[in-house]
Amino acid sequence: MTTPAFTTRFQISFGDCDPAGIVFYPNFYRWFDATCHAWFRAAAGSHARLCEALGSVGVGLVDSGASFRSPATEGDVLEMALAVEAWNRKTLRLGYRGTVGERLVVEGFELRAVFVREDGRMRAGETGPLRTLLEQSGATTTTAS
Amino acid sequence: MTTPAFTTRFQISFGDCDPAGIVFYPNFYRWFDATCHAWFRAAAGSHARLCEALGSVGVGLVDSGASFRSPATEGDVLEMALAVEAWNRKTLRLGYRGTVGERLVVEGFELRAVFVREDGRMRAGETGPLRTLLEQSGATTTTAS
Amino acid sequence: MTTPAFTTRFQISFGDCDPAGIVFYPNFYRWFDATCHAWFRAAAGSHARLCEALGSVGVGLVDSGASFRSPATEGDVLEMALAVEAWNRKTLRLGYRGTVGERLVVEGFELRAVFVREDGRMRAGETGPLRTLLEQSGATTTTAS
Amino acid sequence: MTTPAFTTRFQISFGDCDPAGIVFYPNFYRWFDATCHAWFRAAAGSHARLCEALGSVGVGLVDSGASFRSPATEGDVLEMALAVEAWNRKTLRLGYRGTVGERLVVEGFELRAVFVREDGRMRAGETGPLRTLLEQSGATTTTAS
Repeated sequence: MTTPAFTTRFQISFGDCDPAGIVFYPNFYRWFDATCHAWFRAAAGSHARLCEALGSVGVGLVDSGASFRSPATEGDVLEMALAVEAWNRKTLRLGYRGTVGERLVVEGFELRAVFVREDGRMRAGETGPLRTLLEQSGATTTTAS
Repeated sequence: MTTPAFTTRFQISFGDCDPAGIVFYPNFYRWFDATCHAWFRAAAGSHARLCEALGSVGVGLVDSGASFRSPATEGDVLEMALAVEAWNRKTLRLGYRGTVGERLVVEGFELRAVFVREDGRMRAGETGPLRTLLEQSGATTTTAS
Repeated sequence: MTTPAFTTRFQISFGDCDPAGIVFYPNFYRWFDATCHAWFRAAAGSHARLCEALGSVGVGLVDSGASFRSPATEGDVLEMALAVEAWNRKTLRLGYRGTVGERLVVEGFELRAVFVREDGRMRAGETGPLRTLLEQSGATTTTAS
Repeated sequence: MTTPAFTTRFQISFGDCDPAGIVFYPNFYRWFDATCHAWFRAAAGSHARLCEALGSVGVGLVDSGASFRSPATEGDVLEMALAVEAWNRKTLRLGYRGTVGERLVVEGFELRAVFVREDGRMRAGETGPLRTLLEQSGATTTTAS
C-alpha cells in the first residue's frame, strides 16, 4: 500500500457484530465508504459540494473487494487508512487497510468513477478535475500515479 | 390494532442478528419503514411518485417506538402488518405488528408527516390529500379515523 | 433530561442518509445502542464482561422510542448524551439526546432489562447488581432514581 | 457463471438507498450473505445446524468482491442467483449475479472457509464434509469443481 492519503477511526460496537460475535462483513464496506466520504469532506466540504464543483452526480462505485485477514469484535477500534492506488483516465482506485492496534484486520479497495449525466444516461467522466481538486486541497499526499 | 391495511414479510437472516443471536433491534425499525414504503408503492407506484402527486419532499418521521415482545432469530419469517391508527390534520399514525407464526414479536408505531418546503424551510403539510390518494387506491381499508 | 452519565459522538456519513438526503431514521436507534454499549464498555470492559459479572445473557431491549426534532445530514457530527432516567426493579430506562452543535436532532429512550436464562426460558432479572456495578465504576453520576 | 444452485429475491426499499437515490453498495454484500444463508438454511435448516453438523464455528468469509454493472433503486426487485464456482480443499468460492428483470445489476463472489477452533485458535478446516452435506441435501446442482 502506498502512503495513506487519509486515515479515520471506527469504534466497533455490539450491533456491528453477528451471531459469531465478529464484525458482519458488509460493515467493512460501509467503513470503506465512510472513510472515502470523510476524505472528500476534508478536501471539499462534502460529497455534495465536491459533485457540484465537478458537475457530477456522484463519485460512485464501479468495483470493490476486501480480504478479511483477522476477525474484529465489539470494543475494537478500527483504524482505517485510505491510499490512492491509481488514477486512471475514467476511474480512481482507492486502497484501504484496516488495523486494530498492530493487527491487520482487513484490506480492500474501491474503484470509483466520476459519474455525469449525459443525454439522460449516466456515464463515467474524466477523473482529471477530481484529481486536481483533491491535490490542491492537500487531501492527498500520495505519490501513486 | 385496527384491521391491517397492508402486510409484508421479511426473512430474518444471520446478518440481521447480533452476538446474542437475536435480531439487532434497529432492524425492526428498518422493517417498519420498508413496510410503509411497500404500502406507498402499492398505492402510488413509489414514495417518489407519491411525493410528486402531493407536492411533498417526503412522508417522513416525527416520532416512532417499538415494544419487543419476544425474540426473533435467523430463519424466522417475520410477518409485518401495518394499520392506520389515526389520521390527524398534520400527522398520520401507523401501527405495526410483527409476528413469527402465531407468536407476537414486536409492536410499534410511526408518526409521519407530509413534509413540504415553504420559504426554504420544512414544515408538516395537511394530511388530507395523502389520505384521499391512499383511500382511492384501495391501499387502506382501515376504518380508523 | 437528567445530567448525562455518558456522551459519545458519531460522524454522520453519506451512507447513513436516505434518498431524501437526511439520516435514515433506524440509524438513530443504532447510535442509541452504540452509546449504551460504549457506556457499558467504559464501566465493565465490554457488554460480554458485564453479562459475565451479572450471570446475564444480555442487557437487552424491552421498549424504545424516539422523536425526530430536526434533520441531520452528511457531515454533521452527532453528539449523543445518555442519562439514566429510572432504575426500576426489573428495568432500566435510558434517555438519549442527540444534538448537532446547539441544535436538537433527536430525543429517545431505551427500556432495558437484565435478561437471565431460567429453566430454559428468558426472563428479566433484578437490576440491582447492574446498578451497583455501574455506580461503582463511576460510569454513572446520575441522581435519577 | 455456472448454473445457479440457489436463487432468492430482495425487494429494494427506500432505506436501502443513499442520497444519490440508488442502493448504498454495502447492501449488495448484505444480500450476498443473506442468499448464502438462505441456501445453507435450505440445505441444513440453518447456519447454526450446519455448523453443528460440521463441528465448525462458522462458514465465514476469507475474501469478497463485487462489480456494480447498473444502478438499482427503490421498488426494484433484485433477483440474486448463487452458484458454486469452486470447491477448493480449504475454501469454497460462491458467485453471485443480481438482476432486476433482464438487467444485470451486480456480479460478485464470496470466498468462504469452514472455520474450526483448534488449540484456542481459528483455522480453516477441510471443505469436503460441507460439500457432501450440501450435495446430499440437493441444495447444489452445480457441476463446478
